[in-house]
Amino acid sequence: MLQVTFAVNPIMNQEKKANVSFMEADSRGTAAGGIIHEVGLRDGLQVEKASVPWEEKLSWIDALMDSGVDIIQLGSFVHPEKVPQMADTDRLFSHFQQHGKKNGRVVLSGLVLNEKGLDRGLACGVELFCMGVSASETHSRKNTGMGTAEACERIIAMAKKATATGKQVQVSVQSAFGCGFEGEIPSERVLGIVKRYLEAGLRQISLADTAGHAQPFQVEALYEQIRGLEPETQLACHFHNTYGLGLANCIAALRSGVRSFEVAFGGLGGCPFTKVPAGNVSTEDLVHTWQRLGLRRDIRLDRLLELSRQLATFFNRGLPGLVSRAGSIVDFKPKIN
Amino acid sequence: MLQVTFAVNPIMNQEKKANVSFMEADSRGTAAGGIIHEVGLRDGLQVEKASVPWEEKLSWIDALMDSGVDIIQLGSFVHPEKVPQMADTDRLFSHFQQHGKKNGRVVLSGLVLNEKGLDRGLACGVELFCMGVSASETHSRKNTGMGTAEACERIIAMAKKATATGKQVQVSVQSAFGCGFEGEIPSERVLGIVKRYLEAGLRQISLADTAGHAQPFQVEALYEQIRGLEPETQLACHFHNTYGLGLANCIAALRSGVRSFEVAFGGLGGCPFTKVPAGNVSTEDLVHTWQRLGLRRDIRLDRLLELSRQLATFFNRGLPGLVSRAGSIVDFKPKIN
Repeated sequence: MLQVTFAVNPIMNQEKKANVSFMEADSRGTAAGGIIHEVGLRDGLQVEKASVPWEEKLSWIDALMDSGVDIIQLGSFVHPEKVPQMADTDRLFSHFQQHGKKNGRVVLSGLVLNEKGLDRGLACGVELFCMGVSASETHSRKNTGMGTAEACERIIAMAKKATATGKQVQVSVQSAFGCGFEGEIPSERVLGIVKRYLEAGLRQISLADTAGHAQPFQVEALYEQIRGLEPETQLACHFHNTYGLGLANCIAALRSGVRSFEVAFGGLGGCPFTKVPAGNVSTEDLVHTWQRLGLRRDIRLDRLLELSRQLATFFNRGLPGLVSRAGSIVDFKPKIN
Repeated sequence: MLQVTFAVNPIMNQEKKANVSFMEADSRGTAAGGIIHEVGLRDGLQVEKASVPWEEKLSWIDALMDSGVDIIQLGSFVHPEKVPQMADTDRLFSHFQQHGKKNGRVVLSGLVLNEKGLDRGLACGVELFCMGVSASETHSRKNTGMGTAEACERIIAMAKKATATGKQVQVSVQSAFGCGFEGEIPSERVLGIVKRYLEAGLRQISLADTAGHAQPFQVEALYEQIRGLEPETQLACHFHNTYGLGLANCIAALRSGVRSFEVAFGGLGGCPFTKVPAGNVSTEDLVHTWQRLGLRRDIRLDRLLELSRQLATFFNRGLPGLVSRAGSIVDFKPKIN
């Protein structure tokens, strides 16, 4: 059985010197930088109009595998007429099931929304199943036709089925920090869903900021509360940069013991509520930040930056990620003259 | 004598409930949200090619005064041939010296680079003088022709002269978190300059992240060290968003007791080193963040957002600020249907 493991590279050089706060984070075990879970192929592409050819997708995935990110989400199992960009999801998984196609020890994840999607995913070789429930009643009904309680039952049953076949499962709470329809989401609603996950024996839990409403103090408070319920929870996060706080929220999550970061190449992905082009936290900007903190120096940032520029060329526009334009300063070389 | 005062509005509603970290910040006195120091007219415009007509500038300043930001930097005192955008700085100050032209209790600041600029500023009614020294030897020599030590002597003499005439003075350390020429700047260099400021009796001290190299843990560590030198220092910060960490660094500064935030409308301003359009932290994005934390609810965010859209129209391009495009969620109204 595949297990997601932490590729820790504790190069903490310059920050270790004089930084109390960072050392505090370190002593709490958050210095590892966590898992990088690339969701650009799913959450990034599903809002794009331009159809991505098969060969292009493969070349992006190869670049991601080269880079050394830990998990790559190849797509979601939705009806191809609903999201044409995801029509080749099963084919992608089957492709990478073939001997020698998968480079390195990357884990391939897929998002499933219902039982049919789960069966498709089980048939084509998904290694990590991602599935979730919205903490917003309105969001849940609009997305699934079910309220939160019913959706939660269904997801837990699906998660148990996937687990029983030896698959890894990550369950999530969507709209965990606010909702584009309802606004504030009481933390009790989020914790209620998390409790049900924990009671069902599910330990990999992600909170998704679907609307981009999260702010760092809220992030710290909510994750602390979950750790209070069950300290061994493997926490993940998924933030959007809609209001400019994406990286700030990732840093708050790191401080709070979050261990897996869902990010998208180039910062692709739109906010479903505001329609502004400031969707997911950019993979390369997060990795750049982590590496500047001495974390995850094992990842090849150069490959991620190259990929981001390739994406900008493909989509023929500037993408939200900043580091691909500004250039990395992880290994800054003095320009003194 | 005018004094910059804190317009504190301690509406801490939703975050106060369950947020340990934020309460910690609060108990350390950082919950006020601090002073908003708008530097867009100086640091935003100096890199723009399009010349801004007098009437347009006045309308922007009126909007800023309406919004209730605390300090507005009208410009810098440089040679008009060097930075044509700053050619009307003296005229702007003289204009607002006239009875009834200045709205509210805003403080008007000006950046001076040398003795001649100081004399011009004293003649036309600058209320708060801003001046600084780069912690990077290379940056200092390139900008002023002097090394850090000599530049520091000169700035302290200028600051004393301005103080002696009853003016407020804020002294800064530029390239305090890294340099586009030299890379890492040892914190000892920054602290050395700060010590000389403190010995000269100067208490309003700003650290500027000229190259955008700052990261939150470094920000917290450096401000903690300054507070260690002299707890009563009135700390200010000036961050650039070059690598996406602008707001994260402002939040780190807030946690560390920083009391004045230099920001630019629309997020205008370029990085002098990377030439990417990700300069200053956007005023409206910072105020939006603060208001979502329950801070500075006295500021009229709607006016700032309107101004940001006006700027985008004037410059005929999308500006880096995100909230003017996504819309504020400070007073979110449910969209349940």
